[in-house]
Amino acid sequence: MSMDELIYRIKYLNNPSVIGLDPQLEFIPPCVWDNINDNGLKAAASAVRLFNFAIIDGIAGIVPAVKPQIAMYERFGADGIAAFSDTISYAKSKGLLVIADIKRGDISSTAEAYADAHLGRAKVLDREYPVFDADFVTLNPYMGEDAVMPFLEACRTYGKGVFILVKTSNPMSGQIQDLPVNGAPLYEYVGRLVSEWGRGHIGAYGYSDTGAVVGATHPATAVRLREIMPHTFFLAPGYGAQGAKAADMVAGSVVNSSRGIIAAYQREPYKSRFTPDQFAQAAAAAAMDMRKDLSCLRI
Amino acid sequence: MSMDELIYRIKYLNNPSVIGLDPQLEFIPPCVWDNINDNGLKAAASAVRLFNFAIIDGIAGIVPAVKPQIAMYERFGADGIAAFSDTISYAKSKGLLVIADIKRGDISSTAEAYADAHLGRAKVLDREYPVFDADFVTLNPYMGEDAVMPFLEACRTYGKGVFILVKTSNPMSGQIQDLPVNGAPLYEYVGRLVSEWGRGHIGAYGYSDTGAVVGATHPATAVRLREIMPHTFFLAPGYGAQGAKAADMVAGSVVNSSRGIIAAYQREPYKSRFTPDQFAQAAAAAAMDMRKDLSCLRI
Repeated sequence: MSMDELIYRIKYLNNPSVIGLDPQLEFIPPCVWDNINDNGLKAAASAVRLFNFAIIDGIAGIVPAVKPQIAMYERFGADGIAAFSDTISYAKSKGLLVIADIKRGDISSTAEAYADAHLGRAKVLDREYPVFDADFVTLNPYMGEDAVMPFLEACRTYGKGVFILVKTSNPMSGQIQDLPVNGAPLYEYVGRLVSEWGRGHIGAYGYSDTGAVVGATHPATAVRLREIMPHTFFLAPGYGAQGAKAADMVAGSVVNSSRGIIAAYQREPYKSRFTPDQFAQAAAAAAMDMRKDLSCLRI
Repeated sequence: MSMDELIYRIKYLNNPSVIGLDPQLEFIPPCVWDNINDNGLKAAASAVRLFNFAIIDGIAGIVPAVKPQIAMYERFGADGIAAFSDTISYAKSKGLLVIADIKRGDISSTAEAYADAHLGRAKVLDREYPVFDADFVTLNPYMGEDAVMPFLEACRTYGKGVFILVKTSNPMSGQIQDLPVNGAPLYEYVGRLVSEWGRGHIGAYGYSDTGAVVGATHPATAVRLREIMPHTFFLAPGYGAQGAKAADMVAGSVVNSSRGIIAAYQREPYKSRFTPDQFAQAAAAAAMDMRKDLSCLRI
């Protein structure tokens, strides 16, 4: 299953990090645009595709996984979604696992449709087709279990995994997630649900197929959630640009960095070592530095 | 702004309903498939597009708005998203308002990307392009205000609106939404936030640009939320197939029906009056019956 595979690769590469492929256009250097002959949204999608492919070539063999944020592709319509799909295929072809950061959350037949698209197969006239075919998706739990179960069924049919939002890394995450429910914050209640949803599906390393998003910007919260969710692997956003440090991470986490890696060439110390044409080498260097920084993190 | 326009059209057509364009393939009759020459996901997207266009032709002039559920298009990858985009354009060309049922919820630059795609414009090399350009989107509040503000900024720049999940219609909606927060259910707390987010943006009919999704399957809850959110217009899912009745609706709601209209030809009383080839006429008849059923609902 995907969670075992992720942890295996983290151990094999000695690198508990995932690179967010969130290509805002201001990250894409002129040398990429020089190769684009399209216009408008199609040009943006083509630039995103070429940029990602180069980044993937740079970081493959260093990191175990990438995490494309679908919003950055959806922004450019159907052409953008084609670039999202091609990015996933290319990353998989280079030996990377893919966490599709979609944060979907909807019910019954709608959740099934999302699960078909991102983890399973879409059925058309008695034949089944893989669509985006990621290894993991991120999910939003606000609508309750009916919004989660179709994804878990897809996980168990196709050997995939999910990461469900428990406590996010953004400044206002507490507005709803920290509300007191029977004397404890809501995120603890959600954390227990997530833990329960993974019960009976615990893999070789002691973690279930049902992971949790736990923002690294709240270290004490992560420690508490690690206690109450011992068999739940964490996806930790917030490292780097959002301010969280290696020391803030708890065991059993895969740590995300996005712009800190893919736009490394735009900031020091990489800016003085690499030209914009060398954006992929800069990303590789930043990914290696991140690996070193996280080397004390245990599984 | 879109909310005023929606209420104006509801009054003009004397019809507080919105039709969910959630085209599961089993709703699409053979006569549509006969016109498809593509294969696989592309064939599915083409069938969805033709089916929707016929339904839109059938219901335009009867209903004020349609609500495409993006999951049903995302299921078929980039081709499906192209059909989603074409469906929105076609509906608008026929004088229908469009509520893009996307239930997105993510932060800062990610929320901006979604808002650009669905309500605003995407910037590519100093030019701006409309992408899906719906009139409204649905949103998920779990991540807090940072996940909502970029959409509200787009609303205020482009005259659009949102409907934010407060209490959903699904059986397990209470698992998180009903949790007790300081003696009242979480959905009341979220309802107050949604109300607050719309303050200062109240239109000609007394409702703000920031609406709420309030499932019609919980009538007492809807009554309570109407009390505490007097300036918030409601999008009410759950009518028809999910069991809610006209008498369950509160004033100031637009009521959604999806399969009950678009697949009307598959069930009585329409099945014996219309052939599968007449699926669009059956949808129109069902939409007129729904209008009649909702005729006592006040704005």
